[in-house]
Amino acid sequence: MTASPTTEQIAVVEVLSRCRELVRPALVRAVKRLHPWHAEMAAFSLGWERVDGTPAPGSQGKGVRQALTLLGAEAAGAPARDAVAGAVAVELVHVFSLLHDDIMDGDETRRQRATVWKEYGTGPAILAGDALFALAVQTLAEAPGSRSAPAVRLLASTLADLVRGQADDLLFESRPWVGPEAVQPQEYRWMAEHKTGALLGCAAGLGAVLGGAPASTAEALRQAGRHLGVAFQVADDLLGTWGDPEVTGKPVHSDLLRRKKTYPVLSALAADHPAARRLAALLDAGEPLGAVEARRAAELVEEAGGRAAALAEAQRQLAGARRSLEGVPLVPAALGELLALLPYLVERTA
Amino acid sequence: MTASPTTEQIAVVEVLSRCRELVRPALVRAVKRLHPWHAEMAAFSLGWERVDGTPAPGSQGKGVRQALTLLGAEAAGAPARDAVAGAVAVELVHVFSLLHDDIMDGDETRRQRATVWKEYGTGPAILAGDALFALAVQTLAEAPGSRSAPAVRLLASTLADLVRGQADDLLFESRPWVGPEAVQPQEYRWMAEHKTGALLGCAAGLGAVLGGAPASTAEALRQAGRHLGVAFQVADDLLGTWGDPEVTGKPVHSDLLRRKKTYPVLSALAADHPAARRLAALLDAGEPLGAVEARRAAELVEEAGGRAAALAEAQRQLAGARRSLEGVPLVPAALGELLALLPYLVERTA
Repeated sequence: MTASPTTEQIAVVEVLSRCRELVRPALVRAVKRLHPWHAEMAAFSLGWERVDGTPAPGSQGKGVRQALTLLGAEAAGAPARDAVAGAVAVELVHVFSLLHDDIMDGDETRRQRATVWKEYGTGPAILAGDALFALAVQTLAEAPGSRSAPAVRLLASTLADLVRGQADDLLFESRPWVGPEAVQPQEYRWMAEHKTGALLGCAAGLGAVLGGAPASTAEALRQAGRHLGVAFQVADDLLGTWGDPEVTGKPVHSDLLRRKKTYPVLSALAADHPAARRLAALLDAGEPLGAVEARRAAELVEEAGGRAAALAEAQRQLAGARRSLEGVPLVPAALGELLALLPYLVERTA
Repeated sequence: MTASPTTEQIAVVEVLSRCRELVRPALVRAVKRLHPWHAEMAAFSLGWERVDGTPAPGSQGKGVRQALTLLGAEAAGAPARDAVAGAVAVELVHVFSLLHDDIMDGDETRRQRATVWKEYGTGPAILAGDALFALAVQTLAEAPGSRSAPAVRLLASTLADLVRGQADDLLFESRPWVGPEAVQPQEYRWMAEHKTGALLGCAAGLGAVLGGAPASTAEALRQAGRHLGVAFQVADDLLGTWGDPEVTGKPVHSDLLRRKKTYPVLSALAADHPAARRLAALLDAGEPLGAVEARRAAELVEEAGGRAAALAEAQRQLAGARRSLEGVPLVPAALGELLALLPYLVERTA
């Protein structure tokens, strides 16, 4: 985020923008099917409108998931339009999961705006999430053609994975920092693959399914998305610990201040290193971490190799995603765009 | 609930029990697919287990929805087993909606036990609801045969209806008792048809869809269930106002104490009657109702004809359900059981 964007980054921005434009009309039509109250919360959450209903230009997300879906179809040799219903469904599921996760995590802001539960109340935000969930399934189930049924099956198993990952993430909070019950890095990877990777994998896989690709192609795209999800989550952890507050909008070392069980910390704790033991003692003391302790913890994580391990893990997962994509026959142009998208998403945050 | 049960009531109890036995193994298998934490909350919510995981015999629900699904298949000439996946799905959706609705409504007890959010926390209960929702879709989407796709479509549109009805019910709370913005009895009926009727209609309709019935038969069963839902909700209101605390487990006039916008109250307020105006003044004063005021309000509702209107509405909806069922060719034995089920469900509460 420091120097000017590279040619490749500009190309990715254009790909994302092209995909958003293709999906937007169908997404707007889908949201209009909701109860007006839920449509309002959805428009707010999608960054389309402020809470008073006026347009909020520029605050929408990048639309990574919808892009994966359309590129998944194109990579399978189908026109992007064949996958628009899938792209709408994954965006709706994404917003649903943000709405509910923000309640569970007690997060009051997202992208420098109030979260939906904070703005509308917990009950209404739960229900709006449910409405988006239902609409996502409905959108895919009503998509014409014989590919709707396998698409719904993929979405349904993804939803199950997603809640499993979120459950483990919630349960991590109450587990100890040290000892036999401590969260291991491989448990974190499993959690991230489900909580974050499942939907990214579903996005790419749905494009292939709706594009009529063979099962092996759809599975390769799905696996690539799952790898990408773990890479993204680990990169997000790096940002949450060492990210520039100007960029993240959060205080420095914010994940440590919140005592989050992030990949760098878990990797550091799992290392056989004197700094790991000092870090464990600091975290295990049970005292809230102030700015000084958080800074000290960040240093110890780095000293014990946690930061390097996280950087390596993000790269390893990206390589896994590339391997998945390169292992099946895909249309070269779309494959190129997918391959450009991968590091863009991770480097953005790391 | 006063005299001994009639022969017909005994027969209905046997039908419900037979259906529960047919569905139970598949429901247990489905719940076992959940994250163990969610499986525990589901077992607790289904009345299978106490919070410590020990068996809780006798506290399960009647299983009305699953019975409607199996009878729907039998009425269409198919074996009940063809509809078991549908019965599992509707039970899972029912539990999902209880979990989330109890949070939204702030209800701390259900069937004389703590609600899931009260026992496990709001975040975990939201997530467990999401998990059940996902599992319901997954169960139907993975059902073998070509009928899975239309079954998923029916379930998805039902879920959308269900959240729409719940949204209106939540919004009723902040609407005034009198004036042009007051909730009208027909709005209540629309709300109840969606909030309660949609899932009962889906239950019966799914049985027909999975049993391979023609579209007109499935639609008639679905309509019957929707009528039944309104009847059930209105009867529940009667119970919430005039029910015996010994039976309901709630204080006398509990719906009035909570200022709920129930059908008897809304019908009374909509009547051109002096008691309606006195009732409006009492409710509109904005003061919390004590036991004395609630009793007075109940008398005014009755005087203005609200209780009679609710009783008539429940009967009208039951007649609508019967008409729907009798308008299509159904297997007589299953039709007879469905017809017996209708008044049983409503009289139980009225």
